[in-house]
Amino acid sequence: MAAGPMDGVLALARQVLAAQPFSAHMGARVTAFSLEGTEIRVPLGDHTRQQHGTTHGGVICYAADNALTFAGGAVLGPDVVTAEFKINYVRPAIGSELIARAGAIHAGKSQAVCRCDVFVVAADGAESLCATALGTIRKRG
Amino acid sequence: MAAGPMDGVLALARQVLAAQPFSAHMGARVTAFSLEGTEIRVPLGDHTRQQHGTTHGGVICYAADNALTFAGGAVLGPDVVTAEFKINYVRPAIGSELIARAGAIHAGKSQAVCRCDVFVVAADGAESLCATALGTIRKRG
Amino acid sequence: MAAGPMDGVLALARQVLAAQPFSAHMGARVTAFSLEGTEIRVPLGDHTRQQHGTTHGGVICYAADNALTFAGGAVLGPDVVTAEFKINYVRPAIGSELIARAGAIHAGKSQAVCRCDVFVVAADGAESLCATALGTIRKRG
Amino acid sequence: MAAGPMDGVLALARQVLAAQPFSAHMGARVTAFSLEGTEIRVPLGDHTRQQHGTTHGGVICYAADNALTFAGGAVLGPDVVTAEFKINYVRPAIGSELIARAGAIHAGKSQAVCRCDVFVVAADGAESLCATALGTIRKRG
Repeated sequence: MAAGPMDGVLALARQVLAAQPFSAHMGARVTAFSLEGTEIRVPLGDHTRQQHGTTHGGVICYAADNALTFAGGAVLGPDVVTAEFKINYVRPAIGSELIARAGAIHAGKSQAVCRCDVFVVAADGAESLCATALGTIRKRG
Repeated sequence: MAAGPMDGVLALARQVLAAQPFSAHMGARVTAFSLEGTEIRVPLGDHTRQQHGTTHGGVICYAADNALTFAGGAVLGPDVVTAEFKINYVRPAIGSELIARAGAIHAGKSQAVCRCDVFVVAADGAESLCATALGTIRKRG
Repeated sequence: MAAGPMDGVLALARQVLAAQPFSAHMGARVTAFSLEGTEIRVPLGDHTRQQHGTTHGGVICYAADNALTFAGGAVLGPDVVTAEFKINYVRPAIGSELIARAGAIHAGKSQAVCRCDVFVVAADGAESLCATALGTIRKRG
Repeated sequence: MAAGPMDGVLALARQVLAAQPFSAHMGARVTAFSLEGTEIRVPLGDHTRQQHGTTHGGVICYAADNALTFAGGAVLGPDVVTAEFKINYVRPAIGSELIARAGAIHAGKSQAVCRCDVFVVAADGAESLCATALGTIRKRG
């Protein structure tokens, strides 16, 4: 199949994520990146748990923070940071992978308001919403 | 010096944090734990950075999430989870360690509203505020 | 046309809103109320403005708060309160009416996480998003 | 007593609030305004209630939104708007007046992160915390 015009954009997003040592440390991958939305996946394992056996909230908020930033970057350009966000955890997350899906609700010149839903993937591949987030991404500098 | 009545409480908080595989993975430590407030420290290194060289927001929100939960646990008892929180990043975090200081603003029977300030410690030991958070902790079940 | 089974539910929601003196004072109306979502409309006038001539943020957050509560009430029952919410203002609101549309993302036994978009209606009837909100509604008592 | 250098600043803040038709409609007053913090008071009456008899959340979030904006304006200059905020309601508010006290936690060139506590004043003059908020104020344009 021929390469589409967005393939280079996804490749660029992957380079940006790979350039984040903490994201590499977490094993995160960008699996979609466009104006329509961004998808970041984070593998889960024994080391991502909290004492109750479910996924630690810190892993979930990392996934949300990162997907929000990328969703903002898709509309504002690559040099952005998360200014603030809010997250509601709605269900304990047990599974093999988190999928954070984010998109911009509104973008101005220097900042964008983005929304993110975080899903956990169970052993049978079923996805369940485990958290939802809303935040502001702004250009650096 | 004789052990005070709260020493056992701090030891218990340390056991709870040590029982969180993700917190152990991050190298987090509880350095204060009482009704007056909780302090969690997270060491920073090459692996906790983002592409700009500063600390990744995901590390900062992990620290805030965890300190909020412990601050809620100090007033509600140990079996608690973070229901939701909001974080504002106020300054890029560069340094050797994060210190998340949290306390309960108000506690009811089943939930508490807690506040957290996250500081980064520079090489010379100076602390700077890098983020502030506000959230709800609730009893599980 | 015959009355449908949900007509009584909308009528009940209108009674609840009418029983709120502040909502009556603001002239708010419930124009949809079901498990799928809630719609509350607030008329705008000279008295709802701020100094820049646009709608005061306090009117917009009132509309969001109220629609979130009703969306939570649709899934939890009528005796609910807003525990917390976050709102992002995305565009100055100029027009004749606000429409706050909210729905539950997730509901447990005692609380629901709800989302709300607030639109402003221009003179020509066009709707523009002016704010988006995310919050927790819980049963009272 | 001689007028201090800040008296003019408080007078200016009062002019700004008076220029907001919605704030005039709500009867709000600025009772403190400086770099150290801002205080806005909103009188309560029958018309500010919800159906349970307590103060409507919409009145409380109006007070928080406005105090946050003024606290941001104290550090950034008068031409500011609230970009976003989050509020946690901690206690039903019954009384004669709300007092929203806000201050800037951090200010950059174009935006400030501000915190606000909202108190309700009972008949005997006692103040109780009824809500706490955290938000971002930014310069317009």
